[in-house]
Amino acid sequence: MTQPSSLDELIEALRCLPGVGPKSAQRMAYYLLQRDPRGAERLSAALDHALKTLRRCNRCNTFTEDEVCDRCRSPRRDSSLLCVVEMPVDLNTMEQTHAFNGLYYVLMGHLSPLDGVGPKELGFDRLLARATDGIVREVVLATNFTNEGEATAHYISEMLHPRGLKISRIARGLPVGGELEYSDAATVAQALMERRDY
Amino acid sequence: MTQPSSLDELIEALRCLPGVGPKSAQRMAYYLLQRDPRGAERLSAALDHALKTLRRCNRCNTFTEDEVCDRCRSPRRDSSLLCVVEMPVDLNTMEQTHAFNGLYYVLMGHLSPLDGVGPKELGFDRLLARATDGIVREVVLATNFTNEGEATAHYISEMLHPRGLKISRIARGLPVGGELEYSDAATVAQALMERRDY
Repeated sequence: MTQPSSLDELIEALRCLPGVGPKSAQRMAYYLLQRDPRGAERLSAALDHALKTLRRCNRCNTFTEDEVCDRCRSPRRDSSLLCVVEMPVDLNTMEQTHAFNGLYYVLMGHLSPLDGVGPKELGFDRLLARATDGIVREVVLATNFTNEGEATAHYISEMLHPRGLKISRIARGLPVGGELEYSDAATVAQALMERRDY
Repeated sequence: MTQPSSLDELIEALRCLPGVGPKSAQRMAYYLLQRDPRGAERLSAALDHALKTLRRCNRCNTFTEDEVCDRCRSPRRDSSLLCVVEMPVDLNTMEQTHAFNGLYYVLMGHLSPLDGVGPKELGFDRLLARATDGIVREVVLATNFTNEGEATAHYISEMLHPRGLKISRIARGLPVGGELEYSDAATVAQALMERRDY
């Protein structure tokens, strides 16, 4: 009386996706089989292809199909500036600003001792080697302003300061279009402390 | 400066999943590549396998790996009762009640003229053939109580009534544990109209 096993297995396999529980997995499976078998075929092939071709860039640690990614190889980038971000999505967000023309280092996470993610797991030795290549002059810390992101930024700055590098942190403050009335007190306090001459 | 193409393709392919937009697709892709490549492998294989092995049951129209599904072949089911549901998930919900021991017919949708889904697209001729096999005596309409579900139930009852079959509709009313105070007026009105002798 049960469902066919290949359907069960598909539902179970879909649960590996972040944020997908048993109900959504079931809905997704039926949807794919009934409405979009071509999409399912494409997804299967894309997963397969991505797993086979993608690796980490030797310089910035992000996903690439080559040993060194396009961005790290580009002569139009200012290689004296190195921006440290947590995830590839953060790198994309930075790029969308068109306000940064340096290079990146993607940590692929943040320090999280409770989850067993320490400096070693995040490969800080590789970041250290990357930042002390003799070309990098300034390291811009662009980890998130969460507890973990802040701790990670702090740790990295402690690690790199003795190397004679300039270390900076992206600014906290009110968002563009932000109104004092609707901002939380901590953000306003930070904006006040980090005020600039005008 | 762009992302590797196999990563782009994976993100694009993940968007075929229902409820997954560009942001979630990106998050899912990074998650799979970074944290769960094994899950990704398994998902790719499960999709592939499901597409290859799953077909529609000749009798109830649900997904199965055989010509006729286990349930339709079972001698322990009352084959004089045929319950019509919209989707396989609805069938599962019915089964979880353990209150129905008949057989099913899964429409794989509901009438939705605006989306071009009419009686022909839903294969009502197959349902008609199934319901008039000479064994079925009662057809229980268990489509949803949405406009589309109601219209579908109405259409099916019109189609089957002249065939001398008993047609019934699952009841509307207050949910188990439901309180009048917190029920919407339409549900209470329906519960009143469909009141039973006590």
